[in-house]
Amino acid sequence: MTQFSRQELLEKVTRAIEDLQYNPQPANLYAPINYVLSLGGKRLRPILMLMAYNLYKEDVDSILQNAIGLEMYHNFTLLHDDLMDKAEMRRGKDCVHKKWNDNTAILSGDTMLILAYRLFTEHRTNDNSSVKLTINSETENRALRTFTEATLGVCEGQQYDMEFETRNDVTVDEYLNMIQLKTSVLLAGAVKIGAQLADADEADAQALYEYGLKMGLAFQLQDDLLDVYGDPNIFGKQIGGDILCNKKTFMLINALNLANPEQKAQLTSWINATSYVPESKIKAVTDLYNAIGIKKVAEEKIEAYFNESLNMLEKVKVDKCKKIHLKEFAHWLMGRKY
Amino acid sequence: MTQFSRQELLEKVTRAIEDLQYNPQPANLYAPINYVLSLGGKRLRPILMLMAYNLYKEDVDSILQNAIGLEMYHNFTLLHDDLMDKAEMRRGKDCVHKKWNDNTAILSGDTMLILAYRLFTEHRTNDNSSVKLTINSETENRALRTFTEATLGVCEGQQYDMEFETRNDVTVDEYLNMIQLKTSVLLAGAVKIGAQLADADEADAQALYEYGLKMGLAFQLQDDLLDVYGDPNIFGKQIGGDILCNKKTFMLINALNLANPEQKAQLTSWINATSYVPESKIKAVTDLYNAIGIKKVAEEKIEAYFNESLNMLEKVKVDKCKKIHLKEFAHWLMGRKY
Repeated sequence: MTQFSRQELLEKVTRAIEDLQYNPQPANLYAPINYVLSLGGKRLRPILMLMAYNLYKEDVDSILQNAIGLEMYHNFTLLHDDLMDKAEMRRGKDCVHKKWNDNTAILSGDTMLILAYRLFTEHRTNDNSSVKLTINSETENRALRTFTEATLGVCEGQQYDMEFETRNDVTVDEYLNMIQLKTSVLLAGAVKIGAQLADADEADAQALYEYGLKMGLAFQLQDDLLDVYGDPNIFGKQIGGDILCNKKTFMLINALNLANPEQKAQLTSWINATSYVPESKIKAVTDLYNAIGIKKVAEEKIEAYFNESLNMLEKVKVDKCKKIHLKEFAHWLMGRKY
Repeated sequence: MTQFSRQELLEKVTRAIEDLQYNPQPANLYAPINYVLSLGGKRLRPILMLMAYNLYKEDVDSILQNAIGLEMYHNFTLLHDDLMDKAEMRRGKDCVHKKWNDNTAILSGDTMLILAYRLFTEHRTNDNSSVKLTINSETENRALRTFTEATLGVCEGQQYDMEFETRNDVTVDEYLNMIQLKTSVLLAGAVKIGAQLADADEADAQALYEYGLKMGLAFQLQDDLLDVYGDPNIFGKQIGGDILCNKKTFMLINALNLANPEQKAQLTSWINATSYVPESKIKAVTDLYNAIGIKKVAEEKIEAYFNESLNMLEKVKVDKCKKIHLKEFAHWLMGRKY
């Protein structure tokens, strides 16, 4: 049985996205959708879904459209999140609400969410002339349910993320729950859906879900860590961005918990400061993080999640050699050699 | 076989909406959803769906959750449309984006769209402890496809509606296409879905779709007419609202087409006027409509659509006496005695 590599699956996904042809009328509704999809990205979710399916079955093309549905959903969340966060740029280009306007971002996003469901529940033939519906078995119903629960979870995570901006008492558990909903449940759902569509047993599907969930948590916490300690040439975002906007990350929440009274007073005064040189705030808060030892706390948590993720993969009842691509995926996502 | 009346079906729908229990966390995500659903409304779409099903089958309760999915979708569109239109009030209460804020309106709306799909594709038992999935037959796949096509159509209609605000060359055909997408395809889809879920044949399902489509067009054009000629005590909205904002309705587009050069110049000058007494503009434009004879043009078009709608209902191959409630529905919706 052929085991497809991440690169091979990325090529399949990229081609399938390029092949999407939507009714071009009204053009101003569909143009932003094509724009968002053309911005690229790592296509993590469809690749994870196809890899999980490929543990059990070879004909990954048969579920390619479901996989693209997941990517469509993910891109919808980016579009609406950027609008809600008033972000300017996404992947080096103007966000839809900047390039067009807010209403276009709302309505084109809504349309993407419907298209995500259409992709997930309908299969079209290549010439687009007829539709083969595939949601006709208990197998596919289970996958659809996983999809819906994950998509609801992402909305709940975004709501918590917005609420945390104006709260100063966010706990570590609340933060971990938020990033799990906002980032991990869709990665985890992707892996589980792949397994479910391949008729994997419930225990395997659940172990794969946990693999995705823990990997997502490790990835998000590493993102928090790199915001402070990353190499600006590699990280791709400005170092210290979270510090400047007082984002209640794993780093800051833990720092406030573990600081001695003097450190806590200093940290709080930087959080409340309204006038400062950005570089000075970043350096001062980083120095406090160093003194408190937050880097080690974060690294240990990341390591724990990463190991849990791989342990969950171990539990899946297929040949070890078949799991190599999912194992490699986790290492690659975390920027580690395998 | 029991034929349920509109009032009986409304009670079923109302109870089912009251019984909806969503995960209350995060409370600020779900509170606006419960708020919107509690504002009431005529519940046209679920009632039409259940009535169409009831032409063929009696156990309307078995598809009640699908019907509520349609109502959830409709309420999602109201929430996002009100945000895009910057409306203040809906059914006598503050719109969600006024009562909460824009971001809440975006995200709670997104969640409603996902919940609409969940309701349409999953059945929960009364105690919410287990899920029975019902999308497991070709029958239900067809209905799901009708649902998705209708929901996409509504988004396309809203896009055209927004684009028409800044265009002065909208044709009658473009306008009719816009209101068909924005209003009629979901009413038509509701009737068709009811028939499809009852395993009606394709010809019946299509005739019922056309019944809903033409009824929706007649209803929307009547709304345009009543904006000018309605009794303010009955209409429920301010008379002349469309005239004041230069809305390219069936009335205005036809008036511009049929006016003589002098009338056209007067109409255009009122459209371009920036400073005027509102009552004067409403009276002047209404006088021009009277002189051009627009009321008759609109009434004839409404009558034609209304008759087409009832003719389509005639074609449905079930006993005449079973169709009485759908026939009555059309009369009731149009405010006519039956």
